Amino acid sequence: MLEYEYMENPEFHIFMQEAIKEAKLGLEEGGIPIGSVMVKDGNIIGRGRNKRVQEGSQIRHAEMDCLENAGRMKSFEGVTLYSTLMPCYMCSGAIVEFNIKRVVVGESKNFSEGREFLKEHGVEIIDLDLEECKTMMATFIKNNPALWKEDIVE
Amino acid sequence: MLEYEYMENPEFHIFMQEAIKEAKLGLEEGGIPIGSVMVKDGNIIGRGRNKRVQEGSQIRHAEMDCLENAGRMKSFEGVTLYSTLMPCYMCSGAIVEFNIKRVVVGESKNFSEGREFLKEHGVEIIDLDLEECKTMMATFIKNNPALWKEDIVE
Repeated sequence: MLEYEYMENPEFHIFMQEAIKEAKLGLEEGGIPIGSVMVKDGNIIGRGRNKRVQEGSQIRHAEMDCLENAGRMKSFEGVTLYSTLMPCYMCSGAIVEFNIKRVVVGESKNFSEGREFLKEHGVEIIDLDLEECKTMMATFIKNNPALWKEDIVE
Repeated sequence: MLEYEYMENPEFHIFMQEAIKEAKLGLEEGGIPIGSVMVKDGNIIGRGRNKRVQEGSQIRHAEMDCLENAGRMKSFEGVTLYSTLMPCYMCSGAIVEFNIKRVVVGESKNFSEGREFLKEHGVEIIDLDLEECKTMMATFIKNNPALWKEDIVE
């Protein structure tokens, strides 16, 4: 079963830890704890975190900040995007637009919006379903419901 | 026929001219000529243009730049987004994510990617099909094929 093998692939967990570091850094800054990294050929080529609070940004979701910080790219072939949380429609749209073919998420229990859209567009999704990510996000949402609702414009 | 009435609505043309100004400003700066404004209650609340060249930005498509420049918003109720060109998946994802219910585009002949996605999510699309927008974009693509391919990651 492919999915099982994926869960066991240590690379996914190593890079997800880097996304989690970004999320925690965001939390320390007073922001929304969602982090992201982009990986190609075993190297991190971009990292980012949600910057709504820190930069008063409407569009700097973790994945968007990560994409932006990687700089201009002509091709995303071989790139895997990591995020501590399943991407929203904006970030999923960017993933499809830029032809990113694989996304690894820390969890999708607290938010799962982009999953079907990504699948429909042939993006491989690996959901690590990590307790650490689920607890971090659930705790944040419980303590900051208004900020969370603003971030997903609910 | 509703669509005909829309085409005749002078407000759409007045605000589209503002988006076209942004696109032309982008061209003068050496950038990709796509512009955008956001309107609420007859007032422009945000404006932007593609900043790939100007800011080395992967994510600052015109619509994203416009959204970002409007600052943090809790609700997009009553907001109409204008763009000189039909939005891509990233920008369409942002429109759906932020619950923007109406999009006015200058044209969709040179690029039409987001149309079906927007429609499926209940976004009203008004396509003005303006010669000015079509010619501006077609000329740019003809003269700068590599830059255009980079912008849509083809």
